Amino acid sequence: MAINAYAAYEPGGEFQHFSYDPGELGPHDVEIDVHSCGVCHSDVSMWKNEWGIAEYPFVGGHEIAGVVTSTGSLVDNVKVGDKVGLGWQKGYCNSCNQCLGGDHNLCTKQQGTIIGHHGGFAERVRAQDTSVIKIPQSFDLSLVGPLLCGGITVFNPLVQNDIKPTSKVAVIGIGGLGHLALQFARAWGCEVTAFTSKSKMEEAKQLGAHHCLDSRNPDAIADAQSRFDLIISTVNVAMDWNAIVATLKPKGRLHFVGIVEKPLEIEALPMIMQQISISGSPVGSPATLNTMMEFAARHDIRPVTETFKFEEINQAFEHLESGKARYRIVLVK
Amino acid sequence: MAINAYAAYEPGGEFQHFSYDPGELGPHDVEIDVHSCGVCHSDVSMWKNEWGIAEYPFVGGHEIAGVVTSTGSLVDNVKVGDKVGLGWQKGYCNSCNQCLGGDHNLCTKQQGTIIGHHGGFAERVRAQDTSVIKIPQSFDLSLVGPLLCGGITVFNPLVQNDIKPTSKVAVIGIGGLGHLALQFARAWGCEVTAFTSKSKMEEAKQLGAHHCLDSRNPDAIADAQSRFDLIISTVNVAMDWNAIVATLKPKGRLHFVGIVEKPLEIEALPMIMQQISISGSPVGSPATLNTMMEFAARHDIRPVTETFKFEEINQAFEHLESGKARYRIVLVK
Repeated sequence: MAINAYAAYEPGGEFQHFSYDPGELGPHDVEIDVHSCGVCHSDVSMWKNEWGIAEYPFVGGHEIAGVVTSTGSLVDNVKVGDKVGLGWQKGYCNSCNQCLGGDHNLCTKQQGTIIGHHGGFAERVRAQDTSVIKIPQSFDLSLVGPLLCGGITVFNPLVQNDIKPTSKVAVIGIGGLGHLALQFARAWGCEVTAFTSKSKMEEAKQLGAHHCLDSRNPDAIADAQSRFDLIISTVNVAMDWNAIVATLKPKGRLHFVGIVEKPLEIEALPMIMQQISISGSPVGSPATLNTMMEFAARHDIRPVTETFKFEEINQAFEHLESGKARYRIVLVK
Repeated sequence: MAINAYAAYEPGGEFQHFSYDPGELGPHDVEIDVHSCGVCHSDVSMWKNEWGIAEYPFVGGHEIAGVVTSTGSLVDNVKVGDKVGLGWQKGYCNSCNQCLGGDHNLCTKQQGTIIGHHGGFAERVRAQDTSVIKIPQSFDLSLVGPLLCGGITVFNPLVQNDIKPTSKVAVIGIGGLGHLALQFARAWGCEVTAFTSKSKMEEAKQLGAHHCLDSRNPDAIADAQSRFDLIISTVNVAMDWNAIVATLKPKGRLHFVGIVEKPLEIEALPMIMQQISISGSPVGSPATLNTMMEFAARHDIRPVTETFKFEEINQAFEHLESGKARYRIVLVK
């Protein structure tokens, strides 16, 4: 049955009605009735073809929450009627060493939900079973989507870097990703600091930050020398990274999840003397997504969202681009 | 009793006889009769005051092997007559969290063997007991020194980064540090690759490399995509670090022990997508030094050295500066 969606017909073009035939359901395919879908900065980048990999008509949307409507003959992990979610990746090879080792998110043959495939700005969406995540019953489906891309991107560094509840964690940039990072780090048991602008400090504290630090004030950064075990950077603008590194404790880590276009200029000597690591990571594996959903349910971690109806998708994109969204936009039925 | 030494009286000046009074032996002091002392590039940097922290008359030497001649009243770990070694650090505060946590080498109050203190280009040297390492009986004292700075600097990354015998390890630069890194990584059970010049490939293989890769050939580096779990960089010249990062497997690590003056320019996107870490570390803790000496003794790991008599110290420095030393210079009685 044809799927109705919203598509842009050219880079940055208006979203319009679009209908496509998803073809026969494969043995490992799951079809999801989309109840809500977050709008992420990556949707904007793809929509404008900033990475040169978009195809048109382009149907974005990769923070998807819904209910399973049909499953292929070999699907075992979810069944019709289950509440499920789908994030940035809609399939994996399931046979490379990354997949076999549980790091599906690093699979070199990973299939993107909105790369060469129609995403969640639609009434239904298809995905490989491995990428479809069961959602705990307690979750309001309109609050699931942002966890599946933005959320997992900041949760995964806590898992991958073996962060302890005794660690001091800082988050640079309190937006779609950062506002979830504060909540996760706080629930993880850590001392949490937000690097943010003065205007967001009060909200950052409500979201879990014990301390705030004005990220535009070099003196404030200089005063925070040797304080953090982990800093998660969610921003995409260049900062004085060496000043940031100086706020790390010995053996500390500056971890990037925000894609900074300008090459990072890092001084080798302080990194060597203090045994510092600089690193990055993308989204998370299906196992880590499951772990995150269970953790988020237990600790009542939810995105702060602004909702738009699916038919208001063009206004939603405009609002996201204005930089005023607090903190994540979700399209709902 | 006064200690006779070789000192430079000005930056880069000739080493001449010098005698100093070490004062009363403190309760935690150990005095060592110096049998041999390696010459490290850091001795050259300090001698020329390149880091602006040298004091004159300057007595270098921090790859020291000898025998204990006297111990302070509270010294418990070594006794008179023991074969011992002393490296870059000659004391610690023993009370900060780094020291208490076993990371004495990251102590911010660490005392350098040749920083504000007279080092091992001398008949005797003093150090705090915590920094004095017992040497296994099987060791020829003239082959100990280079392990205590150059050796520990490349051994420590295997320990700190939890490298497994199943890992694929590459070493950039086969010199004083790199020739020991190859031996350690091979004995660790790893698949070992040397990034080096064509002229050193045969020797690199004798030292433990399974494979060699011409570090000046961009095509050779491009061909090695996604191959290594850990790369230890021992060089101090800038390379195309992003091309090097591309030779790492997902979750791989590029680890710096060589101090590159030019800031490292690292692209964020590949680091994020492949979950790469960039890191560094200095020397190692006393516990890791002890572990290294035991491992080196058991696996018969020894530096390849050229020896000079202590009175030939000026020729030794000249030879080191010529870049022709294979691989580490040691002064002997």
